[in-house]
Amino acid sequence: VNALIIVAHGSRRETSNLEILSLADKLKLEVGDRFKTVSVAFLELTQPSINDAVVSCFKQGANEVTILPYFLSAGNHVSEDVPAITQQLIEQWPDKAIKVIPHIGAAPAMIQLMSQVAVI
Amino acid sequence: VNALIIVAHGSRRETSNLEILSLADKLKLEVGDRFKTVSVAFLELTQPSINDAVVSCFKQGANEVTILPYFLSAGNHVSEDVPAITQQLIEQWPDKAIKVIPHIGAAPAMIQLMSQVAVI
Repeated sequence: VNALIIVAHGSRRETSNLEILSLADKLKLEVGDRFKTVSVAFLELTQPSINDAVVSCFKQGANEVTILPYFLSAGNHVSEDVPAITQQLIEQWPDKAIKVIPHIGAAPAMIQLMSQVAVI
Repeated sequence: VNALIIVAHGSRRETSNLEILSLADKLKLEVGDRFKTVSVAFLELTQPSINDAVVSCFKQGANEVTILPYFLSAGNHVSEDVPAITQQLIEQWPDKAIKVIPHIGAAPAMIQLMSQVAVI
């Protein structure tokens, strides 16, 4: 059973955090064939943490978790924080599979998306 | 003459800032018919600022500048900082057109992009 977790930075603005939750709901409709659940975790300023979100997936029966860092560039959060948290989880849950895929900003199709929105 | 400026947060990691510059170069190939230049500005931690980038476009002959906030969610940077800086520029340059388009995370096609990258 596969679970997808979108990891975002987290904001003091509740509307900003709700934007991510809404995105997860929409994404679920697209990836429902691959992932039984799509949930959200935040690095800072709000909850749940990556740790809480991953454990929650395991409790719901997931044995494979994919973490999608919802960040545009590879700053410290992407390069250090997410890998460190994930590494700790991997050690704590040796019978589960946890993997981190590249941050969304690294997707080759990001250029096309930017081109679509860049209107005069 | 239209100029496009990608506004990113800025990072302490130079590789992260260079990632944005590289993206701008690639985007230029896609939007060259619409924008004479594609440049980058940062809100924090590195240069150039939005102000410097906009003025630089004007000096290069642009009379219309489109600002693309390269942010995934509408936190304070998107909701307050970028609009405030832009408003000040609009007042300082009444004979120029400066507009801010929605942040990249608000693009409807973001869901498809996330679906593409979310692999098991």
